[in-house]
Amino acid sequence: MQVISRYFPILDWGRRYDRGALSDDLIAAVIVTIMLIPQSLAYALLAGMPPEAGLYASIAPIMLYAVFGTSRALAVGPVAVVSLMTAAALGQIANQGTMGYAAAALILAALSGVILLVMGVFRLGFLANFLSHPVIAGFITASAIIIAVSQLRHILGIGGGGHTLIELLHSLFANLRETNPITLVVGVSATAYLFWVRKGLKPVLRKMGLGPRLAATITKAGPVTAVVATTLAVWGFDLAARGVAIVGEVPQSLPPLTLPDVSPTLIGQLLLPALLISVIGFVESISVAQTLAAKKRERIRPDQELIGLGAANLGAAFSGGFPVTGGFSRSVVNFDAGARTPAAGAFTAMGLAIAALALTPLIHFLPKATLAATIIVAVLSLVDLGVLCRAWRYSRADFIAIAATIAITLAFGVELGVSSGVAISVLLYLFKMSRPHIAEVGRIAGSEHFRNIHRHKVETDPRVVTLRVDESLFFANARFLEDYILDRVARDKAVRHVILQCSAVNEIDMSALHSLDAINARLGEMETKMHLSEVKGPVMDRLERSHFLGELSGDVFLSQHAAIMELTISPDTDTTEHVA
Amino acid sequence: MQVISRYFPILDWGRRYDRGALSDDLIAAVIVTIMLIPQSLAYALLAGMPPEAGLYASIAPIMLYAVFGTSRALAVGPVAVVSLMTAAALGQIANQGTMGYAAAALILAALSGVILLVMGVFRLGFLANFLSHPVIAGFITASAIIIAVSQLRHILGIGGGGHTLIELLHSLFANLRETNPITLVVGVSATAYLFWVRKGLKPVLRKMGLGPRLAATITKAGPVTAVVATTLAVWGFDLAARGVAIVGEVPQSLPPLTLPDVSPTLIGQLLLPALLISVIGFVESISVAQTLAAKKRERIRPDQELIGLGAANLGAAFSGGFPVTGGFSRSVVNFDAGARTPAAGAFTAMGLAIAALALTPLIHFLPKATLAATIIVAVLSLVDLGVLCRAWRYSRADFIAIAATIAITLAFGVELGVSSGVAISVLLYLFKMSRPHIAEVGRIAGSEHFRNIHRHKVETDPRVVTLRVDESLFFANARFLEDYILDRVARDKAVRHVILQCSAVNEIDMSALHSLDAINARLGEMETKMHLSEVKGPVMDRLERSHFLGELSGDVFLSQHAAIMELTISPDTDTTEHVA
Repeated sequence: MQVISRYFPILDWGRRYDRGALSDDLIAAVIVTIMLIPQSLAYALLAGMPPEAGLYASIAPIMLYAVFGTSRALAVGPVAVVSLMTAAALGQIANQGTMGYAAAALILAALSGVILLVMGVFRLGFLANFLSHPVIAGFITASAIIIAVSQLRHILGIGGGGHTLIELLHSLFANLRETNPITLVVGVSATAYLFWVRKGLKPVLRKMGLGPRLAATITKAGPVTAVVATTLAVWGFDLAARGVAIVGEVPQSLPPLTLPDVSPTLIGQLLLPALLISVIGFVESISVAQTLAAKKRERIRPDQELIGLGAANLGAAFSGGFPVTGGFSRSVVNFDAGARTPAAGAFTAMGLAIAALALTPLIHFLPKATLAATIIVAVLSLVDLGVLCRAWRYSRADFIAIAATIAITLAFGVELGVSSGVAISVLLYLFKMSRPHIAEVGRIAGSEHFRNIHRHKVETDPRVVTLRVDESLFFANARFLEDYILDRVARDKAVRHVILQCSAVNEIDMSALHSLDAINARLGEMETKMHLSEVKGPVMDRLERSHFLGELSGDVFLSQHAAIMELTISPDTDTTEHVA
Repeated sequence: MQVISRYFPILDWGRRYDRGALSDDLIAAVIVTIMLIPQSLAYALLAGMPPEAGLYASIAPIMLYAVFGTSRALAVGPVAVVSLMTAAALGQIANQGTMGYAAAALILAALSGVILLVMGVFRLGFLANFLSHPVIAGFITASAIIIAVSQLRHILGIGGGGHTLIELLHSLFANLRETNPITLVVGVSATAYLFWVRKGLKPVLRKMGLGPRLAATITKAGPVTAVVATTLAVWGFDLAARGVAIVGEVPQSLPPLTLPDVSPTLIGQLLLPALLISVIGFVESISVAQTLAAKKRERIRPDQELIGLGAANLGAAFSGGFPVTGGFSRSVVNFDAGARTPAAGAFTAMGLAIAALALTPLIHFLPKATLAATIIVAVLSLVDLGVLCRAWRYSRADFIAIAATIAITLAFGVELGVSSGVAISVLLYLFKMSRPHIAEVGRIAGSEHFRNIHRHKVETDPRVVTLRVDESLFFANARFLEDYILDRVARDKAVRHVILQCSAVNEIDMSALHSLDAINARLGEMETKMHLSEVKGPVMDRLERSHFLGELSGDVFLSQHAAIMELTISPDTDTTEHVA
């Protein structure tokens, strides 16, 4: 039972479900449904899919997440960055609007679902740690810029496309002369209106006497008013006949049952994009879920979240959708509207199913420019170039990682951007680790404290060198240590003892062990003994299982003080003072 | 002048060169020359090159290393593993024995030279740190096995080939029936004799009254006697006519001036192999150089070594050779024979040049089986499967890295083997780092010491949780810390203060800063304050440049003791005792 409810969190909250939770969840569901209709259509447009796919991608996935997910408030469905990545991945396979494109979207969702499930079952959630904060921040900012620019053509009413900033700008300028003035008016007004809703509507509502939560919720539903108004305008003035692109015919149906076509070639082509989409989606989703859970002192389980998102994506694959993940804005609305359990998600799914069945004829005249405006306003809040300044001040390595991720994503697209970002982060980290801080220390007179000889007034003995390494010893810095010590001793013929103070060494891997062996042997050839001091318990346990301690020319001292007492207690001791 | 002699170490030792050094260097050169003749021919065979290329690859490179290298005893030329990697790289481009093959070898050497020079000038030697000891150990062992098996066909006198163990064994069994009995006799006797020379000759020579150094040197020159004996046998009994493969016509000439053909396609194909060859060669060479330098308390400069090896490889490229590096056995012989400066290398080069001019007709009848025997005996000493056992006992992660490197190298060849080894090492390291040791600590009664509550009898306060993280905080473990702390606090409603004891934290990167931010904000939502204690100086400097300290809900305490005094000094303090 424990195991079953571990994998089916619904059994846990479901047993305690009561009428109070039901009414709260129902209210939240109504509000989220209203908000999700335009958002789902817009992200379908962004992913290059037909509009109904956006609704379908929000129905089965939400239901499945309600069964398997651990977050009480997370709302799953199409989100901006994942939709962009979907469009980039599918653009390499087929042209938008073709059968092949929609079929590939199903495979992409299925692969993403399988990858997430495998990661969840094998507890591979730690792989997401490879996406450092600079990479995510840079990637989201660059993606948001690409998304916003990609939507400009719908605002202008022109053709074209592309997956990188360069391609997009090129196609934009090439087609600029074909701008449709009426579309432009609709698009610009919708964008301006939505910006105003975001910034200016809430104060107005508050002045009208509405409570802060209700005002915030109505504000979030703002896009619906833009949708209604522009659809009515297109219908009333017959703007479609004057060149305003509209959504057009949308089938009036529940999500279809779709079977992803299992083609080895396609799977091979889509595997890497699916992996990137899965990891990015997981990282985005988990941070939203953590934020909302903390507000109620609830817990989420990252590995089970992988299973929940995996099930959601498989749901999308079998019901005519495309890759999905937990979205920020919809989850916050769900939370603020008072959702208490994942049942709120299930009710939202029902609301969207009703919309897919009943309301699709009403959006026939919805202009694409309105959807583009919705997207632009939503993603521009993701652009955070200030992170570059903050990183510059805090750490140059992090700055390089962010700048490179942004530049590569903008210039070469999302897949290369995020992969290079990961590679650069890892390389910079290993580079930093490869040159650990090594301090030569001496004793502060009359004490048992040992400090850096360059910073403090300390006593040393010319025959004894003590080096403190402020990092674990492993392959990336083992050879540096070797070079450092041998160089130090070769320069100074008086040295007879080298003590390695290991108080900051949490681990010694086999490469470092090999280097210590080499240092010991080479110091031996220089008639110098090697000693260790202050080795931590677990490190010592491991050293005792190796041949190293048997070959060590010197001793292992419990404390640095004991080492110095032992090695300098002889009549010819001759101490020198160093001053910073 | 300082800068010039930094890049031209010859100016340093050359100024102090005297008659004593000259005579020592000359003696060493004669011994090394005798040893190098069969070795150079053998490694040319292994690399798939004509025999004279082995001599050429030992002449100009040695001269150039003498000018640019910092090691007094390193002898540069073709070595086993690099020759195998050369054959693997060129095998993808052209068939052995063709013009294209030899031309590609020149480009490979030139690329390798340029890569090493660039690494040297830009101080990129740290890149070699990515080759962890397990990867090198596994790679050398697997390469040695592949090399030994690849030479069996010369011992048997059959055709075939291949670059992986599977290919080699397959071709061996397929051609086994064509075994030439006379070749087999020559090959097996040569192999047995060389094994005996290695193990049994030295004791015999010692019994005959020779000094230990002389006995060791003669032992190293053993292969020459095998070469002479089998060549005479083939010539005397006309064994070539009976199917014994011989070296055949070798041009009698100094190294030719060759210009590597600059074809972008070829360069593209050979760039990655050249990079791997450069890094592997550098690592092998530097460890030999370090070992020998330590024996005389001399210093080598790794970055200048890169320049020396780079120049040597460019020398090989322009004089009909193939990629070279510092070899272990020849350098040891050079050192033991008393070489005092790199001039010994220059004299060796002259000796080999004379050999190329005068002695090549004498090796016409040298059987390839003898060269194969030389290679087999040399490389089998590199096979070290015991490293697997040592790694198993010492660390499972290192064991996995070694076993995977060996398996992938044997099954898929040298290039994939070494690249996968590097990738696996880095992944395992990041995985280990992603789950740092986090101890919950309490105060040992009556002291200022704080220890793990699970190991020691300590006092704690239910409202205060202190966590000590035993690792620097960076992207790979930032999210783990976040999950760990939020989970700990969500489980325990009594907690009002979380103290992060940072005594083992050497760095906090931007991802970790972001996580600390998130932890602070989410703890705030749980009405819990976050504090830091014992933050190191450099870490604090950096935190002060960020917005974090301004938003921190709690305080930063100099010591953990001060933190506990401040946070628990209230009338309702209620301490609990934990016992391990």
